[in-house]
Amino acid sequence: MKYAVIFGANSYEHEISIVSAVVLKKVFRADMSFVYCDSLKHFYLIPEDKMNAKTFSSKAYLKEKELFLKQGGFFEKGLFGEKKLECEIYINLVHGKDGEDGKFASLFEFFNLAYIGPRIEASVLSYNKELTKLYAQKVGVKVLPYKLLKSYDKTSLAQDFDFPCIIKPARLGSSIGISVVKDKSELEYAKDVGFEFDGELLIEPFIKDIKEYNLAGCMINDDFIFSMIEEPQKKELLDFEQKYLSFSGNNEVKEAKLDEALKAKFYEAFKKIYNPLFKGALIRCDFFVIDDEVYINEINPNPGSLANYLFDDFSVALERLAKNVKNEKKVKTDFAFLHSINASKGKL
Amino acid sequence: MKYAVIFGANSYEHEISIVSAVVLKKVFRADMSFVYCDSLKHFYLIPEDKMNAKTFSSKAYLKEKELFLKQGGFFEKGLFGEKKLECEIYINLVHGKDGEDGKFASLFEFFNLAYIGPRIEASVLSYNKELTKLYAQKVGVKVLPYKLLKSYDKTSLAQDFDFPCIIKPARLGSSIGISVVKDKSELEYAKDVGFEFDGELLIEPFIKDIKEYNLAGCMINDDFIFSMIEEPQKKELLDFEQKYLSFSGNNEVKEAKLDEALKAKFYEAFKKIYNPLFKGALIRCDFFVIDDEVYINEINPNPGSLANYLFDDFSVALERLAKNVKNEKKVKTDFAFLHSINASKGKL
Repeated sequence: MKYAVIFGANSYEHEISIVSAVVLKKVFRADMSFVYCDSLKHFYLIPEDKMNAKTFSSKAYLKEKELFLKQGGFFEKGLFGEKKLECEIYINLVHGKDGEDGKFASLFEFFNLAYIGPRIEASVLSYNKELTKLYAQKVGVKVLPYKLLKSYDKTSLAQDFDFPCIIKPARLGSSIGISVVKDKSELEYAKDVGFEFDGELLIEPFIKDIKEYNLAGCMINDDFIFSMIEEPQKKELLDFEQKYLSFSGNNEVKEAKLDEALKAKFYEAFKKIYNPLFKGALIRCDFFVIDDEVYINEINPNPGSLANYLFDDFSVALERLAKNVKNEKKVKTDFAFLHSINASKGKL
Repeated sequence: MKYAVIFGANSYEHEISIVSAVVLKKVFRADMSFVYCDSLKHFYLIPEDKMNAKTFSSKAYLKEKELFLKQGGFFEKGLFGEKKLECEIYINLVHGKDGEDGKFASLFEFFNLAYIGPRIEASVLSYNKELTKLYAQKVGVKVLPYKLLKSYDKTSLAQDFDFPCIIKPARLGSSIGISVVKDKSELEYAKDVGFEFDGELLIEPFIKDIKEYNLAGCMINDDFIFSMIEEPQKKELLDFEQKYLSFSGNNEVKEAKLDEALKAKFYEAFKKIYNPLFKGALIRCDFFVIDDEVYINEINPNPGSLANYLFDDFSVALERLAKNVKNEKKVKTDFAFLHSINASKGKL
């Protein structure tokens, strides 16, 4: 099967996405092309031997072939017309904005390209942390309580809450703009930081030494493929760099030692969240455990290098998923309604 | 200001969208181009004098100039290179799938075109009727109770509910696939019809002679422009044709006679729903009234010909909105992270 990996785009996680693509090249045993979307949202075909950080940071990518998106694929212009990029399936490896907010899902659906990644609705519900909570509660998965601060609503800004708390922009991943606020003196600065990134901030209780676990997986027909359950090593809060270097294979990954009953709760919660909303994607769910109960913290619908480090055989899992993805059904248009208007209601 | 109207696309409401565009040409006093997206999702520039039903039903549109979407605009290919369609703002007049599910919002944002229409998140939350209910409750607007039937979940299919009820596919507008079910004998057929269109069906109580009211509007900076409140003439359920011929100006529109207290409740509910999620769009909210309380039934983020028939001066309202729309903020990429990796962590 011939794959193309899309990465970059106009996102705070643009560089993370580049790292993610470089890592995927190393860990996924498959025939892959690499389509870079720069921050101005032009596409470039990057040769495999140039898939390294310098190609991008030095802007050498600008010398590579530019690609254009049209119905059915990416095309390059040549002397003898247009040539289509050979590819059976695209992998959405754009993290954060553009990649996980519904835009790339929309592009793939609109231009009719088969792809691995969250669909539009799944993107929107996982990208906005408040919607994630509403969705999780709807499907019967526990979430931490929260309050919402809105930059455009003074009443919301005057709400009371306890310290310590954690403040998160509603619509960003990757720990960007997130602060742990120990007491009131730190609050204003943390709000200012958060509002730099989003007009809405979630406030959650900060629970010191809370147990955190990650589980990745995907669904093939009616079966789930699960990764190991990891207890990520952490400081108070994983910072940007630390969180993302983790998927480059430099950190040691340890399977969490859990009893079977708790494990079953993780699988159960993952299934409720995944099916059917995330079909077509390989996602990573980040859970908390409090008093033996499982809470969803965050859904990563395009995890960094697709969480390869959590799987026994990542290549097999991704390949099985690739063979199983489906795009939306096409609607047939027969103009029956317009014909009937012309016939009976007078011409439009 | 120079406008371009986008209509058609791969939607059950494809033909409705054509009618909507033909009507807009008549009612909107502005300099407009017309960009037709056929059901294969190719774009064509339709000359104003060919904006009639026959151009589409006879497929004569195929002889018009094809347009291509690229960063910054629509382009046509000519002998001397590419020519950009002159346009300052696009109007999303694609109804239903593609237009209201987040795809066109994504295209406009990705390709950096200013547009009137719902943003991605607003599209997803209004396109899925269950998400509309969750969202409305979150912002403090009442909704009718519902149950969800899922084609992929037998437990959900075995739920009990009372008759008469109304069955709606979760993700379609325009009365398509909707049935009023008077008793159990009609249920299976109604479910089959609904499941033709979506894997999830909402079941709501059917309340005979329920009062229904429509209110359209938009927000300019911090002010709202509201239309009149209409009590739509109806049979048991407005059917496809009846519902959509209404915006072509053939039906008489009557302002509902309401006391000020109830009117205030409509405005209040509209504001809660609109702000800030629907900024950039002119929407129509369809409300129910039960015991003097206002319930949201449906949010139409691209109403048929943008509900022109409800406004005193539709052209002025749309023009003010056009001058006020904003796309997403751009994220700056400086490659600081990649530089730091190269410097200190070993080359990627």
